[in-house]
Amino acid sequence: MAKLSGFPEYLPAERIVEQRVLDHLRRTFELHGFTSIETRAVEPVSELLRKGEIDKEVYGVRRLAAEGDETEKDALALHFDLTVPFARYVVENANDLDFPFRRYQIQKVWRGERPQQGRFREFTQADIDIVGRDTLPFHADVDVAQVMAEALAGLPVPPLTLQVNNRKLLEGFYLGVGAADPAAVMRVVDKLDKLPGEKVIELLGTDAGLDLRQAELCLAVAQICTPDGSFVEQVRALGVEHPMLDEGLEELRQVVEGATAPEGVTVTADLRIARGLDYYTGTVFETRMAGYEQLGSICSGGRYDQLARDNRSTYPGVGISLGVSRLLAPLFADGLRADRSVPTAVLVTLLDEDSRPASAEIARALRSRGVPTEVAPRPQKLGQQIRHAERRGIPFVWFPATGDQPHQVKDIRSGDQVDADPSVWLPPAEDLAPRLVTTDTTEETTP
Amino acid sequence: MAKLSGFPEYLPAERIVEQRVLDHLRRTFELHGFTSIETRAVEPVSELLRKGEIDKEVYGVRRLAAEGDETEKDALALHFDLTVPFARYVVENANDLDFPFRRYQIQKVWRGERPQQGRFREFTQADIDIVGRDTLPFHADVDVAQVMAEALAGLPVPPLTLQVNNRKLLEGFYLGVGAADPAAVMRVVDKLDKLPGEKVIELLGTDAGLDLRQAELCLAVAQICTPDGSFVEQVRALGVEHPMLDEGLEELRQVVEGATAPEGVTVTADLRIARGLDYYTGTVFETRMAGYEQLGSICSGGRYDQLARDNRSTYPGVGISLGVSRLLAPLFADGLRADRSVPTAVLVTLLDEDSRPASAEIARALRSRGVPTEVAPRPQKLGQQIRHAERRGIPFVWFPATGDQPHQVKDIRSGDQVDADPSVWLPPAEDLAPRLVTTDTTEETTP
Repeated sequence: MAKLSGFPEYLPAERIVEQRVLDHLRRTFELHGFTSIETRAVEPVSELLRKGEIDKEVYGVRRLAAEGDETEKDALALHFDLTVPFARYVVENANDLDFPFRRYQIQKVWRGERPQQGRFREFTQADIDIVGRDTLPFHADVDVAQVMAEALAGLPVPPLTLQVNNRKLLEGFYLGVGAADPAAVMRVVDKLDKLPGEKVIELLGTDAGLDLRQAELCLAVAQICTPDGSFVEQVRALGVEHPMLDEGLEELRQVVEGATAPEGVTVTADLRIARGLDYYTGTVFETRMAGYEQLGSICSGGRYDQLARDNRSTYPGVGISLGVSRLLAPLFADGLRADRSVPTAVLVTLLDEDSRPASAEIARALRSRGVPTEVAPRPQKLGQQIRHAERRGIPFVWFPATGDQPHQVKDIRSGDQVDADPSVWLPPAEDLAPRLVTTDTTEETTP
Repeated sequence: MAKLSGFPEYLPAERIVEQRVLDHLRRTFELHGFTSIETRAVEPVSELLRKGEIDKEVYGVRRLAAEGDETEKDALALHFDLTVPFARYVVENANDLDFPFRRYQIQKVWRGERPQQGRFREFTQADIDIVGRDTLPFHADVDVAQVMAEALAGLPVPPLTLQVNNRKLLEGFYLGVGAADPAAVMRVVDKLDKLPGEKVIELLGTDAGLDLRQAELCLAVAQICTPDGSFVEQVRALGVEHPMLDEGLEELRQVVEGATAPEGVTVTADLRIARGLDYYTGTVFETRMAGYEQLGSICSGGRYDQLARDNRSTYPGVGISLGVSRLLAPLFADGLRADRSVPTAVLVTLLDEDSRPASAEIARALRSRGVPTEVAPRPQKLGQQIRHAERRGIPFVWFPATGDQPHQVKDIRSGDQVDADPSVWLPPAEDLAPRLVTTDTTEETTP
């Protein structure tokens, strides 16, 4: 019965935070016309391993009582991201979907990684993608950046920076510099987080065949980072020219200038961002959370000119994937909680079993106006019933009318107790649902 | 890339129906103070197979690259219900939970069954349970029946019958009749759905050792079914007496009279219901949907005096589990859909790329008042943009102001087109979100 490392489970007051986060993401995605899909948890092993890179992380799934001949042909495994299943879904249902297809997908994924801080074996991702059939207007890149920036802005988390770059910009720049193997340059520059600049310049010589001037230019471009379109001028000032560079600069400018940053989120052109994955072909995204940089990117994605293909079409797409569990884990560790462990706003007390119908009627009246309400489970002493509410963080306790005593409702935080009519009384709007707090400081967190 | 039998995936217009159903369930559960938890998808194989009954259905999970020594000790499997994981969660977190603990849990479960109508290998369940530490007031049984009846009443489904019975009533009756082995009687009576009455009477003789009079009494009690407390009188009229029978009658009366049935749901005392599972000790529930009786029970549960135990305590509980996928499958087959494939209520047209900021501003204004809005992806001909909306079922198309022409919005169903101000215009409330329809008849379904 021990907890399983890498498989986090939340207590109710944490789960309420997660629900709040997921509700906000969904609401934002839907306001922008993204529709929900869910894919099955399993995919054929052969599909998942097509890229051949991460087989160590994949969990195979097999009926315990499976017969021998089921083993190979029908082998299944748990999905490790939502992109591979989405690509399959698009091809499988292409005739029933309308393109460009805007979908969001919030589901668990599984990876057999060694558990460590911010790395889980089961975790929740929230993905948005826009996918076209054969073509997809570039503006989709701006759109997903904008929508994810708005989604991130409403979360109860520290300031976030959505870092945008463009693979055409990088590849065009490296080609313009005269690099014979732009991919090799990108692999070296990608180490800039871990290595000092001099070491990177050295490796650009040894591993990517660049001379010192070329290497210095590639390092210089990687160090450009602006919260607006001024990166274009800074890149131009390096004097490198290539048509693909021009295209990349213009695309990146459109994303950074087009995705207006709501409060709490900064959108930057950050020319250090490369993303390791081969399939990105233009825009790339990463996201850092202030004070939690050691987590790495908590929200990443980009443009892929071929998410999927079938006999007749290719399906270009652009998407971003938010690591919800990864985002929440350090915040939970730092004490982020709901101030109640239940949705309940009002506990109706119970004098004795005979008066249960009267208490139930009060509860029904409150619920009919959207107030989550419970009746005390037992007709205990009133002090015990009040403690029942206190332990769960329920803010209000209702005392049913008795004899000539009218109905009363007590705010157990302030102790204020007033007469009240169950057919009209409402709690203050901010008490209807649990609030998010950081328990260390009992300081309130913005929604 | 073929679809996997038993692993249903929905198209967007079906997924919207499922979301509506899950939202309504969650809303009802939370109004009654049930709090959400989720448990990990995997449990140790040893835990899942403790009852030893259903090992053929369990999916084992193992890293494809697992080393040999991981195999036995750490063997994991996908959960096949939400009760076993919940019992583990309660024991594991008992110190951090407040009892009685009211939780709901909506998650996928997996069973390696042979796929057939209404049977899936991956499906969604929605469970509510109330669990106490050492004791749980009987009224919890009434409570879960009431809450699930309300939850079911708001669904876009045919009329439902929540059938309630009580194991103490049955066991007490069989003891009162003089049966030596009440469990054997229950096993035979449980076949009443498949066998004619005479055959059941015969089996009660051969398999349960009853004489004809005893057998006829046991058959007679199983045939009692009332939508109110009048079953008590009918049972009494059979002249059988036993203290456990009295207790069961009183408990069942409380549930049937206490759980007031909202429109669309009938709560009945149905003395044929036994539930096969050993761990039920009092109240038992099943649910039939009118016109879909062949599905069997779509929502079942009951009282178990020992959901779980640890060194110090036992945890009695009562719960009901709704098979959401099982409920939805035949309705989807019969054409239940959302009337849109997207959340979008308004498509803002795009005259050319230069006017994109103006169209985006209109969309932003509408979204700020909660109206899901998209901007057309490309500045195509207006006819094509309108078809973009039509194909997705988006009801309104917005034409931005141009020159002396004011903003206009068109209801593409009626063709009505009117001047509109993006800072105040709202669609009719019933057009804000997709509606549920049955596509065969285009007849509207109640929410």
